[in-house]
Amino acid sequence: MAKLAKRKVRAGKGNVSKKVAARPRAAKKRIASKAELQHVSWSTLELEDLNPLLQRHFIVGQNIMLARVLLKKGCVVPEHSHHNEQVTHVLEGALKFWIDGRIVVVNAGEVLTIPPHMPHKAEALEDTVDVDVFSPPRADWINKTDQYLRGK
Amino acid sequence: MAKLAKRKVRAGKGNVSKKVAARPRAAKKRIASKAELQHVSWSTLELEDLNPLLQRHFIVGQNIMLARVLLKKGCVVPEHSHHNEQVTHVLEGALKFWIDGRIVVVNAGEVLTIPPHMPHKAEALEDTVDVDVFSPPRADWINKTDQYLRGK
Repeated sequence: MAKLAKRKVRAGKGNVSKKVAARPRAAKKRIASKAELQHVSWSTLELEDLNPLLQRHFIVGQNIMLARVLLKKGCVVPEHSHHNEQVTHVLEGALKFWIDGRIVVVNAGEVLTIPPHMPHKAEALEDTVDVDVFSPPRADWINKTDQYLRGK
Repeated sequence: MAKLAKRKVRAGKGNVSKKVAARPRAAKKRIASKAELQHVSWSTLELEDLNPLLQRHFIVGQNIMLARVLLKKGCVVPEHSHHNEQVTHVLEGALKFWIDGRIVVVNAGEVLTIPPHMPHKAEALEDTVDVDVFSPPRADWINKTDQYLRGK
């Protein structure tokens, strides 16, 4: 799969482009630029280490950001909020959320939609893989100004 | 997992709501209404049979729609386009796209971002599960006016 995606990119087939995460300049440009066709394999997209328990990579479209987030058991995402709408889709593991005055455990195969500006905290109850969708894309993730996630 | 989600819903925990797909009125209301916190399990969300090879269910937020689409091998989605930005994330199987004058095969673990208004056709090369993200949500899917997908 990885090889296939790589080959396509190297072949330079028109504007089917391959994007690499953690490149703020390119990402900024993508947000401002016209939407483009992108074909990306998660397996070849660099993972960013945010802290010893948290890694992620993401793909930025026009109004949609798709992030694949890997959380080790015990990883805590401190309470925060953002203007971006968020939809969290847990693929493996389980995430415990503190949100809207209650606790919600989102297991594999489940989805949580989080309205803009709603504060939330999360903890990985197991090693977890989730896909977070944001609209609009998270400028703080792209610009690496998301200090609440880093180095803890 | 399904039981857990069900229990939560029945317990009526605040406004953590459980949504059921294929309910045009409710869906329309959701689009027009304020974003809300939703906790949904795919396993308890009704699948809609569009044709013998194609099923789907979806979750509608404010500006994001998340659809889980099940395609049997050989299923063809005829060429179409829409103003909604689309991000297709293949979880299992493989989809062959005809798009922007070329062919792109999107395998499991790969993502295709499709800009608004870009015509595309797809065929499932294997039994496939993909998650399609749209922004804004697809009114034609919600209102069941997506005749290009039905009954073929």
